[in-house]
Amino acid sequence: MSGVTATYLIYDQSSIQKKAEGIAIGLTVGSWTDLPELTQQQLKQHKGQVVSVEETDAEERISEFLGKKVKKGIVKIFYPGLNYSHDLPAVLTTVFGKLSLDGEVKLLDLEFTGDLLSSFQGPAFGISGIREKLGVYNRPLLMSIFKGVIGRDLAFLKEQLRHQVLGGVDLVKDDEILFDNPLTPFEQRITAGKEVLGSVYEETGHKAMYAVNLTGKTFSLKEKARRAAELGADALLFNVFAYGLDVLQELAEDREIHVPIMAHPAVSGALSSSALYGISHSLLLGKLLRQCGADFSLFPSPYGSVALERDAALSIGAACKETSGIKETFPVPSAGIHPGLVPVLIQDFGIDSVINAGGGVHGHPNGAQAGGRAFRSAIDAVLEGISLSEKAKSERDLQLALDLWGQVEAGR
Amino acid sequence: MSGVTATYLIYDQSSIQKKAEGIAIGLTVGSWTDLPELTQQQLKQHKGQVVSVEETDAEERISEFLGKKVKKGIVKIFYPGLNYSHDLPAVLTTVFGKLSLDGEVKLLDLEFTGDLLSSFQGPAFGISGIREKLGVYNRPLLMSIFKGVIGRDLAFLKEQLRHQVLGGVDLVKDDEILFDNPLTPFEQRITAGKEVLGSVYEETGHKAMYAVNLTGKTFSLKEKARRAAELGADALLFNVFAYGLDVLQELAEDREIHVPIMAHPAVSGALSSSALYGISHSLLLGKLLRQCGADFSLFPSPYGSVALERDAALSIGAACKETSGIKETFPVPSAGIHPGLVPVLIQDFGIDSVINAGGGVHGHPNGAQAGGRAFRSAIDAVLEGISLSEKAKSERDLQLALDLWGQVEAGR
Repeated sequence: MSGVTATYLIYDQSSIQKKAEGIAIGLTVGSWTDLPELTQQQLKQHKGQVVSVEETDAEERISEFLGKKVKKGIVKIFYPGLNYSHDLPAVLTTVFGKLSLDGEVKLLDLEFTGDLLSSFQGPAFGISGIREKLGVYNRPLLMSIFKGVIGRDLAFLKEQLRHQVLGGVDLVKDDEILFDNPLTPFEQRITAGKEVLGSVYEETGHKAMYAVNLTGKTFSLKEKARRAAELGADALLFNVFAYGLDVLQELAEDREIHVPIMAHPAVSGALSSSALYGISHSLLLGKLLRQCGADFSLFPSPYGSVALERDAALSIGAACKETSGIKETFPVPSAGIHPGLVPVLIQDFGIDSVINAGGGVHGHPNGAQAGGRAFRSAIDAVLEGISLSEKAKSERDLQLALDLWGQVEAGR
Repeated sequence: MSGVTATYLIYDQSSIQKKAEGIAIGLTVGSWTDLPELTQQQLKQHKGQVVSVEETDAEERISEFLGKKVKKGIVKIFYPGLNYSHDLPAVLTTVFGKLSLDGEVKLLDLEFTGDLLSSFQGPAFGISGIREKLGVYNRPLLMSIFKGVIGRDLAFLKEQLRHQVLGGVDLVKDDEILFDNPLTPFEQRITAGKEVLGSVYEETGHKAMYAVNLTGKTFSLKEKARRAAELGADALLFNVFAYGLDVLQELAEDREIHVPIMAHPAVSGALSSSALYGISHSLLLGKLLRQCGADFSLFPSPYGSVALERDAALSIGAACKETSGIKETFPVPSAGIHPGLVPVLIQDFGIDSVINAGGGVHGHPNGAQAGGRAFRSAIDAVLEGISLSEKAKSERDLQLALDLWGQVEAGR
C-alpha cells in the first residue's frame, strides 16, 4: 500500500499509546469513534494506523530538564498515500506539520512505500556516476574547500583552486557563504574554474571537479543552474536547508540541468540539533537528501570542534548508502579533518566516501599543494595496509602533517 | 550601513566573548590577525563585527542536561551587507549556516538595515488591506477551520463552509493537510467556495473570505497561485515551512498573484521548539513571516493543549505589529480557542488580531453556525465593555458555549 510510515521519539506526561492514537486519527480523518458506520467505511482507507508503540521510562535528566515527569516512547504511524500529493512538502506537512508544534516530538525516520517511494528518483549521478566522471574507483575521494574568499577577486580564487588541485585533490567546493558578487560572479567562477582545472589536467593528467555555489532567489535557481550546465559546470554546491528539500529534488530531476549536486548542511542544525525536537540527522542529512537527489551530503564529522556525535554521523553515512532502489549518495564527513584521521575516516565511512578538509589542506606547513599530497599519501597507506608512520618515512608532506596534527589509529 | 545584526543565545564551556569573535571572523573574512595589513585594509568593510556580548551564568538545569558546566551569553554580531546577496537564503546561510551546527546556539533576532532591509517589501495587503476587503474595522476578525475533510467530497466542504460563514465568521481556512486530490481539487475548491460565500452574502449581507491551501511542487506554485488569482481566490493558505521563507516572499511579491497569504506554522516546531537550538518564535513566526509577506501568521495560542508559552506567543503578536516601514501582519493565535477566551485573546493580542477556532466553532451544542454566533457575541461583549456572562443573558448561543467550555477573565 502506497504511503509513509513515520517513526517518532515522543516524551509525554500521559500515555504514549493514547497520544499515538490521537496523532494517527488527528492527522488523517480528524475523528473516528463518533462517525457513523457508513462514513467509517467510506473513510477507512484514509485512516492513519498506529503500527507500533514502545513505551519506556524516560531518562531522569530529560524529566528534570522539562520540569515534569515524562514517559518516553518510540511510535510508528502509517499515513496512507491517498491523503496527500506525492511531494515532500505534503508529506512533511502531514507527518510533522502540526505535530512538530505539539510538545516533545522528534521525527526519527520515514519509510516510503509504493507509488510514493517511486516519486523520489534519488541522485542523478550518485557514487557510481561521480566515480565515472573522475575515473577514480578504488579509493575515497579527496575534497578541499576555498578559504577566506569573501572580498577577494577571481585571480585569488584561481590561484587557490590551482594549488589545491595540484596536490591531488579530486573535488574543490566553493565556500558556502560565497554568493553572487561583483568580484567573483557565478558564471565567471564556472569559466575560471574550468580554465584552471583544464590546465592542471593538461599539465599533470589529474582530473578534478569544482562545485560552484548555486545561490539567489528560489525561482531563479533553475534558470541559473541550466546556465551553469551550459557553461559546463562540474557540480553545484547547494545550501538546501536555506531553501527546501523539494527545491533540491526539482533541481536534481531537471533534465536540462543534469549536473551533480553537493548538498551543504548550512542551517540544518536548526532542525536536527535537539534530542527532543526536530528531525533526526540520519533522516534529514541521509535519507531525505538522498531521496531528493543529492549526489553528495556534507555533514559535521565526529572528530572536529564543530562535531556531531559519532552515532549520528555514522547513521548519516549508512543512510547515504543503504540498499534501496536509487543511487547512493557520497557521505562527506567534514570539519576538523587532517591526514592523521584518514584511517579512522575510512574505517567509519568506508572507501565510498569523500575525505573533505579545509584547514587540513590549506594549513599544511608547505601550503595547500603539499596538504593535498599528504592526504593522498595517507589514503594510499590505508589502502596498502601500512601505517601512516610507515608511509611517512618516504612521504615528507605526510610526515609534516602528522607532526603538526598528530594521528588517530583506526580499530578503536 | 546595509547589513544585518544577528542576536544569538549561546551556551558554551569556554569564553563567550572569544566564541563571538570567532563567529564574526569565521562567517565573514575567515581569518584576520594573520593577514597582511594591506589585505586587512582591503577586507575591512567585509569583516563581521561583534556588537555586544553579555555573559552570565547558565541555569543549573541547562548544564545538567548538557552534562557539562556551561556559560550563557547573549551575543550580537553585525554582518556587512556587502558579503551576501540580498535574499533570505543568503542571509540565513551567512548568519546561521555553519553556526547552526556549532553546539548550543539559538538565533533570537535579526535586525536588517539599509538596502538589505528594503529588499523585504512585507505583506501586500496587511491588516489594513484585509480590513478593507472585508469592510470590518473595529473588532478582531473571526476565523474558523474546516474539520475532517480528508476523503470527503465537494458537497461536504460546501455545506461546512456555508454553516461556518452563516454564523458570522469572517474567514474560513482549508485544513492545512488537505492537498490537491480528485474529490476536492484546488481549482474546484476555489470556485465552490466563491459560490457559497456569494450566496451567503446575497442572503445576509455578510462578507467572508476563504483561504484555499496552495500546495504541490515548489516550482509549480507561482503558476498555481496565478491561476487561483484568476479564479478570484480570496486568500491562499500556505505551509511556508514545508517549502521555505523565500518561496513565500516570491509569491507575495508577484504582481500577477496579488492574493492575501495566510502562513501556516506546520513544520515550524522543528525549528523553534528547543530552548537551546534553532530560531526564536518571534523571529520565525513574527518578523520573518512579516518581512517575507505573510498577511496572516498562524501560531499556537498560549491557551490550548498544543500550546506555546505565553511570552513566546505574545512576542510573535508583537513582531507582527511593531513599528516598521512595512504593513502589519494579522496575528492568529490558534488551537484551544473557545468563546470564553475572547476577553483574554483581545487583552493579549489586541483588536488587530484574528480569533481562530476549530472545535470551538464546530463543537458548539447547536452546530457550527451557533458556534460562530457565540464567538461574535463574545467579541461584542468585550467591545461593549460588559462581561461575557452579562452578554450571555440575551445571547443563548454564547450561554451554551460558556456552559460547555467555561470562561477565562481578562486582566490576570
